[in-house]
Amino acid sequence: MVQGASRGIGLEFVKQLLEKNERGHVVATCRNPNEATGLLNLKHKFDDRLSIQQLDVTVESTIEECAKSIQERYGSLNLLINASGVLSISDKLQPETTLSKVQKSSLLFAYEVNAVGPILVIKHMWPLLKNGGGSGTERDVAIVANLSARVGSIGDNRLGGWHSYRSSKSALNQLTKTISVEFARKKDPIICILLHPGTVDTDLSRPFQRNVPEGKLFTKEFSVQKLLTIINGAKRQDNGKFFAWDGQEIPWS
Amino acid sequence: MVQGASRGIGLEFVKQLLEKNERGHVVATCRNPNEATGLLNLKHKFDDRLSIQQLDVTVESTIEECAKSIQERYGSLNLLINASGVLSISDKLQPETTLSKVQKSSLLFAYEVNAVGPILVIKHMWPLLKNGGGSGTERDVAIVANLSARVGSIGDNRLGGWHSYRSSKSALNQLTKTISVEFARKKDPIICILLHPGTVDTDLSRPFQRNVPEGKLFTKEFSVQKLLTIINGAKRQDNGKFFAWDGQEIPWS
Ligand SMILES: NC(=O)c1ccc[n+]([C@@H]2O[C@H](COP(=O)([O-])OP(=O)(O)OC[C@H]3O[C@@H](n4cnc5c(N)ncnc54)[C@H](OP(=O)(O)O)[C@@H]3O)[C@@H](O)[C@H]2O)c1
Ligand SMILES: NC(=O)c1ccc[n+]([C@@H]2O[C@H](COP(=O)([O-])OP(=O)(O)OC[C@H]3O[C@@H](n4cnc5c(N)ncnc54)[C@H](OP(=O)(O)O)[C@@H]3O)[C@@H](O)[C@H]2O)c1
Repeated sequence: MVQGASRGIGLEFVKQLLEKNERGHVVATCRNPNEATGLLNLKHKFDDRLSIQQLDVTVESTIEECAKSIQERYGSLNLLINASGVLSISDKLQPETTLSKVQKSSLLFAYEVNAVGPILVIKHMWPLLKNGGGSGTERDVAIVANLSARVGSIGDNRLGGWHSYRSSKSALNQLTKTISVEFARKKDPIICILLHPGTVDTDLSRPFQRNVPEGKLFTKEFSVQKLLTIINGAKRQDNGKFFAWDGQEIPWS
Repeated sequence: MVQGASRGIGLEFVKQLLEKNERGHVVATCRNPNEATGLLNLKHKFDDRLSIQQLDVTVESTIEECAKSIQERYGSLNLLINASGVLSISDKLQPETTLSKVQKSSLLFAYEVNAVGPILVIKHMWPLLKNGGGSGTERDVAIVANLSARVGSIGDNRLGGWHSYRSSKSALNQLTKTISVEFARKKDPIICILLHPGTVDTDLSRPFQRNVPEGKLFTKEFSVQKLLTIINGAKRQDNGKFFAWDGQEIPWS
């Protein structure tokens, strides 16, 4: 399952999962399936292997509906990628350049989408992931991969700014870590990891690409290929860890 | 200024600031001044040095009103302690023991009070802190001290649980760090620090004191005395750091 698959990194995950494997089903979720042209194009090519479902992480009932439908149709999940995320949305969220521009509404909105959203998805997919474990893969566990960002690392924060986004990603990291501890304690066949995709050429990064050093702006194809290598190679001892695209572990500090 | 001063650690800060210094004004804020008996008792003893003001961190207009009134009355601040915080509130927030009990409303509520609240207070007190710097103290800078908690440290999270509280404190840590970077860059005479008070015998910890090892449950008097030592000795290079009650730095990991 790839959550947040209409565009950008999420869509590219769906594409590579379908193209690089000869078998296996992919559930791709997005807010507006009818407008998700990238997914609809893939559906033409991979009709029997791709299912597109509606899911908005800010509307918990859509998460519950989606879990129910996966339960009925497949009964399990062996991979959940949370790729949704927001950095800027006109009128609702502007990456802050100074404390004096920090708004309560932006802080809460980014937290709801970037931190609370993926956690509610994991909550409702948990029984399906337990059923799935590593079945149909070379792994012995199901993987939950949450797309975080290096700017969520507190100790790494040397530039300041982007209060709402940074804070929501730090919170996502803490929540993911907290969940990973419970999965390990209960010996569930599931591990959680956090991924930093690098700076990737998508709608999200577009307004900020001017300052990216030469050679450091990745294509989605490159980043997702790297991230899939990490996911496919993930072991139990990686549970709760935070990896950059190149497999290097990112410390919280 | 001590924000969140009706009870617990905040009230003890007000008491020690008044009793251990012969001069200096303290602004103590709380949600319901008329019911804050601890503060009202101190007001009898220190009438001319203590001002009690209404402030609810979830109602931004009360923060703005408070800043205006301090501006008119004193024109500056040389210390801001954010001591407010919530861990459990019947019907609204229960420290979660498992992911299956995590509720969106609790996650958002804890974030609003514990992370967003103190940051909005700093936002509105910023001009006053700039005016204050270290004036009237032995320091050359004004101090912002935010009460965080060791359970907000991500790498230190070995027990899991308490999702809403942990996440809100990690976010507070990240936001405080982000603000500290801006203060340093602008060469403002202000530093921000984060404090872990230890496990302290207050209403907040009461339901969880059974599991505290012998000798590890501190009185408010002891903890606040230790925290004031850290505050009084804080230097520019401590900006953005996270200290435990004993002065040991807590890494984010
Ligand atoms: N691109 C980078 O440089 C970069 C760097 C570090 C981390 N990341 C992280 O990587 C992830 C993917 O980013 P991206 O670059 O692919 O961004 P993107 O191109 O802007 O795509 C964001 C995706 O999130 C979805 N989304 C937004 N709000 C949602 C909601 N409420 N419910 C469900 N889905 C929602 C969007 O759906 P709609 O089409 O419906 O809006 C879209 O599919 C994000 O978590 C981001 O923070 C990206
Ligand atoms: N006690 C510990 O063991 C411990 C450990 C680690 C960290 N901490 C942190 O230390 C700080 C103080 O905790 P404590 O033990 O003194 O807790 P406490 O005794 O429960 O006091 C909490 C204080 O926060 C105030 N508050 C709650 N919601 C508020 C709001 N919306 N606006 C303004 N004030 C609000 C309360 O005011 P009302 O009287 O109006 O409710 C009260 O004054 C908290 O940030 C806590 O997370 C405590």
